[in-house]
Amino acid sequence: MRIDGISYRSVWVDAVDGSSIRILDQTKLPWALEILSLRDVDQAAHAIRSMQTRGAPLIGAVAAYGLCLALRADASAAAMERDAAMLAETRPTAINLRWALERMLTVLRNTQEHQRTAVAYAEAGRIADEDAAQNEAIGRHGLPLIEAIARKRPGATVNILTHCNAGWLATVDWGTALAPIYMAHDAGIPVHVWVDETRPRNQGAALTAFELGKHGVAHTVIADNAGGHLMQHGQVDMAIVGTDRVTRGGDVANKIGTYLKALAARDNDLPFWVALPSTTIDWTVTDGVAEIPIEERGATEVTHMTGQLSDGSLATMRIVAPGSDGANPAFDVTPARLVTGLITERGRCAASAEGLLSLFPERR
Amino acid sequence: MRIDGISYRSVWVDAVDGSSIRILDQTKLPWALEILSLRDVDQAAHAIRSMQTRGAPLIGAVAAYGLCLALRADASAAAMERDAAMLAETRPTAINLRWALERMLTVLRNTQEHQRTAVAYAEAGRIADEDAAQNEAIGRHGLPLIEAIARKRPGATVNILTHCNAGWLATVDWGTALAPIYMAHDAGIPVHVWVDETRPRNQGAALTAFELGKHGVAHTVIADNAGGHLMQHGQVDMAIVGTDRVTRGGDVANKIGTYLKALAARDNDLPFWVALPSTTIDWTVTDGVAEIPIEERGATEVTHMTGQLSDGSLATMRIVAPGSDGANPAFDVTPARLVTGLITERGRCAASAEGLLSLFPERR
Repeated sequence: MRIDGISYRSVWVDAVDGSSIRILDQTKLPWALEILSLRDVDQAAHAIRSMQTRGAPLIGAVAAYGLCLALRADASAAAMERDAAMLAETRPTAINLRWALERMLTVLRNTQEHQRTAVAYAEAGRIADEDAAQNEAIGRHGLPLIEAIARKRPGATVNILTHCNAGWLATVDWGTALAPIYMAHDAGIPVHVWVDETRPRNQGAALTAFELGKHGVAHTVIADNAGGHLMQHGQVDMAIVGTDRVTRGGDVANKIGTYLKALAARDNDLPFWVALPSTTIDWTVTDGVAEIPIEERGATEVTHMTGQLSDGSLATMRIVAPGSDGANPAFDVTPARLVTGLITERGRCAASAEGLLSLFPERR
Repeated sequence: MRIDGISYRSVWVDAVDGSSIRILDQTKLPWALEILSLRDVDQAAHAIRSMQTRGAPLIGAVAAYGLCLALRADASAAAMERDAAMLAETRPTAINLRWALERMLTVLRNTQEHQRTAVAYAEAGRIADEDAAQNEAIGRHGLPLIEAIARKRPGATVNILTHCNAGWLATVDWGTALAPIYMAHDAGIPVHVWVDETRPRNQGAALTAFELGKHGVAHTVIADNAGGHLMQHGQVDMAIVGTDRVTRGGDVANKIGTYLKALAARDNDLPFWVALPSTTIDWTVTDGVAEIPIEERGATEVTHMTGQLSDGSLATMRIVAPGSDGANPAFDVTPARLVTGLITERGRCAASAEGLLSLFPERR
């Protein structure tokens, strides 16, 4: 994707030294476009933990590259297993992280130590390239949903609600939920996106609004509270969100608050779609609400907020009454019964075991 | 209610001059306790419009006092009607505002001009006193709901979720949704309140947390997104909210986002109660979603936020990506079918025409 005419991915290998990993610092967006260099596995782990890099598909790719950095320092089998385990613990909910590391280890365990680093970079590169390609395919499979709404009311704007950031910043490129929206926009369909602010970290207000703005897609930021009202009043045609983990049965873990929007979509008979590369599917889990671990982040993400003062400087301020504390579950699980369908790189399917297995028969 | 040992109401007549109206500046809370003096009707209108004073029952009382201030300047019938109409337009959604002004006019139209101001202050005082008494009664009628939960699990904490601020700051005294909670706490029942932050104006994080903290009630502030997840995981026993307008059939207009919590409560088989003085009932409206006017406030409430910097000073900062705009519907309507019941000064009832008429048979 492009920012001010320059093409970016969300993670890449430095072209000069050929080994350090570059990411956009997403804690600085939208206020500043800062590119970080990750030079060792601890920096990679810190970047994931502190959400300098985030988004389920993207942290899979960054973790894979993090393992490459680990191997540069120590390519022994013992160090590799230890560092991979450490990287796997940086965030608990997104399954892509574990998937990418497992894929790396499967290849690397069968590779001689002196070849491991080179093989690792090649494999991490494939993971990144495949993520970009899968997301582009998600865009192609999601586009007909938007086209169908546009056809029903020629010339009228298609209003799509999204939660959090499931755009190219959350993936290596394209994005999941936003990929069909970018393609619809590029195809000349008038789309407008209701961007949920996405408290407490404001990924909607900060990242999705930034992405859509840079691409020229019409959008409006709303409080997370507003979506139900807009749906009641015919101002939303469909919702599309990303996900951090989908169970075998189609339950969807995603940013906290997703469940509330799915309930509102159901109550208003509106389609609620979830876009994901198949790397986000956890085939080992059946009951999402009971089994998916939900990350509990620090209360200061609720009690404090960072933004830009009128002089252009950034500041952090307290927004909760002094003496009061906060709680911060970072994800929730939307039961499959509330999901209209899943958009994957292989096509669309029902949010159910049957639906997923129809697209991924090798998992039967 | 008391703050640091001093008793306050949310509006009162200045004891020294006997005419100016004092309010707590709620735009300054929780950072500073500033008492404003309203000396003319324009100051009263500004205080309501700018939300220096807010909460459906409270703005009814302040509007009544605002009319007193208007009459001090010009007690003619023409001026009275003009100023009352102006006050009625300061906020569109809360019905109490129109109810209080209509009650004042009904008395004052039958009062000679030279007696109007004195009669107006007396009537406004009655409105304020009645609001406090009604809210105390709401507390008494809501308390058994909390006691019943506490009895089922002796010694266990009763977890109650609330949205926005429906405490004593939203009324003349006691509050609506918080009145039963204060009474339960005072009766020794271990209660804990999940306080929805309530974006975009943060009345939960700023006002409800402040109130509960000053009263010593255990509470935790959460992002508005979190309530559904907490309900899914057994961490909420019931929800209680206030309202700005209830229709004849029991539909509930309240702060934006209320509808989403009602949907989540229903999806998790949890009780969702709405507390209100009968002055909040609009007997003329049947279909809440279609008929209640929803205030659209400025986008800067979404794009910017005010809080306290680490040096203690207050600041306002931008939190939305530069170039992106916001939309800000301030209320939504929860259909009666999602409301477990209503708590009024006359007792509890179903959220339906039959339920309301059983408590208010004079409206048949």
